[in-house]
Amino acid sequence: MASSGSPSSPTAEGKLDVEFTVPAQVEVAGHLMAEFAQRHCSAGRRVVLVTSGGTKVPLESRTVRFLDNFSSGRRGSSSAEYFLDSGYAVIFLHRHRSQYPYSRCYAGVNLLDALLLQGGEGGSGQVVADTGALPDIAAVLRRYQAVKDAELLLPVEFNTLSEYLHLLKAAAQALNPIGSKAMFYLAAAVSDFYIPASEMPEHKIQSSNGPLQISMKMVPKMLSPLVKDWAPRAFVISFKLETNPSILLERARRALDTYRHQAVVANVLDTRRGFVVVVTPHTQVELALSEDEARQEVEIEEKIVANLTAAHTAFIED
Amino acid sequence: MASSGSPSSPTAEGKLDVEFTVPAQVEVAGHLMAEFAQRHCSAGRRVVLVTSGGTKVPLESRTVRFLDNFSSGRRGSSSAEYFLDSGYAVIFLHRHRSQYPYSRCYAGVNLLDALLLQGGEGGSGQVVADTGALPDIAAVLRRYQAVKDAELLLPVEFNTLSEYLHLLKAAAQALNPIGSKAMFYLAAAVSDFYIPASEMPEHKIQSSNGPLQISMKMVPKMLSPLVKDWAPRAFVISFKLETNPSILLERARRALDTYRHQAVVANVLDTRRGFVVVVTPHTQVELALSEDEARQEVEIEEKIVANLTAAHTAFIED
Repeated sequence: MASSGSPSSPTAEGKLDVEFTVPAQVEVAGHLMAEFAQRHCSAGRRVVLVTSGGTKVPLESRTVRFLDNFSSGRRGSSSAEYFLDSGYAVIFLHRHRSQYPYSRCYAGVNLLDALLLQGGEGGSGQVVADTGALPDIAAVLRRYQAVKDAELLLPVEFNTLSEYLHLLKAAAQALNPIGSKAMFYLAAAVSDFYIPASEMPEHKIQSSNGPLQISMKMVPKMLSPLVKDWAPRAFVISFKLETNPSILLERARRALDTYRHQAVVANVLDTRRGFVVVVTPHTQVELALSEDEARQEVEIEEKIVANLTAAHTAFIED
Repeated sequence: MASSGSPSSPTAEGKLDVEFTVPAQVEVAGHLMAEFAQRHCSAGRRVVLVTSGGTKVPLESRTVRFLDNFSSGRRGSSSAEYFLDSGYAVIFLHRHRSQYPYSRCYAGVNLLDALLLQGGEGGSGQVVADTGALPDIAAVLRRYQAVKDAELLLPVEFNTLSEYLHLLKAAAQALNPIGSKAMFYLAAAVSDFYIPASEMPEHKIQSSNGPLQISMKMVPKMLSPLVKDWAPRAFVISFKLETNPSILLERARRALDTYRHQAVVANVLDTRRGFVVVVTPHTQVELALSEDEARQEVEIEEKIVANLTAAHTAFIED
């Protein structure tokens, strides 16, 4: 553990250890991530941790109800593909069942609508893909298989906020040894609020008790110990999503001032698929899809990743 | 619309119309459900509405955050299969992306891990199912196709609580004309609490404003107008899930007393896959899987559906 002497991080890290139960899978995941980072760094590759999807915040300890964040995992999973295309090895820390690199192309498809019994009832009995329901399936499958065979993608799953926070810490500690070759691309939609285990009702909240009053505490910001203690030499990017465009850039700047990391990708809910601003301490770059690009289904993540991998190169050389 | 003269239902139905926005898809879905019910009833079939999955309750009007209920949709989707096996036509009102009849067998499988490029790189380029990753796929696909070809399963999707409530009302009105041949099997995990549109903040709640206080109102119970006004001759089953076994049966009895419907399937979170109690006004039947049955992967839903279809027969004849 990175026990810290810095003034502001003990609070966040201390809260993590006290108020969020360590999930069972953290130790094994930590070892896998450390081994993955070391192996790819030795082979001359940079390694990016992509976080993706929303976190689940239980309202009861035997959980029936929970608070969740809107997030399909689209941005994280598509970005992971562009990082792979750019030569990165990718640790994909994602919400269970959120969109996944490559298979995201078919996220809305019912598996059984995408398969055919060859030759019908009297046929060979072989089950084949329906290329009408799965456009480009052979090409996508080939790319997916190549990434899998080269072991360039390490998937790690979370469901709850606690799992996410502890796995993020484990990932940071796993990536710290490769220094500036590590990038953190924190695209997950992490809850800002939670109910401490000590204040949580054990049983399902009864509706017969009348209206529900929920009081939630603010989630400690892990960017602080991540940047200061866990992986201080890494290249760190956070995301800022707002519904109100007028406060967006000010919030992004404030986050950079507070956490002293390298960049914030700022975006507004309604326009997030076509427009973002990459904010760094001294620059502010708008990335947008042209109408032509939108028609051709170019993804904004291609531009985000191109911008950030270039910035990462400069950061490493610096 | 069933405008009601009964004493207790106007409150719930009135609230539905005032406080929950009518979603765009309700009118079309209503017509499809009415046509489906009429067609199958004319062909001598009973029709069951199976509701399945949890509802999403927005906390902001441009929604980033929402409250959700734990529910994979396993019980609803497996029950739908047993109703189909029993000769029912099924309207499957389910949460978007929750488990679906037949494809639920492969719910955890990444599509791209389940497909193979035949003959490898130099092969035919045909993509075939990996029967190792998709056990029994030919048989499952055959069953799914038969149900689809016979148009015995009508899927209707919801995401939010508002969508669920309005679609439930539309379903009830669509099934009302077939009288006692209709069954309502209300297995969805519907939120007990919501924030009225008028009290909802427009923009994303800012974490910088400090801890979050949420005040939620109780969701009006639609069982009341459903039983009294919308489909008064139908056979109606509700579900009661608790985490605390000691209050379960009392709550089930209280629900029957309040809503005057035909049965409650009562279950406890931890044991719900192997044990339920079917509670009716004058009976109480425990259904359980033996160790042998559990080993053979018999599903408790097979017993629940057998019990209720028999009760439905008696109800129709009565």
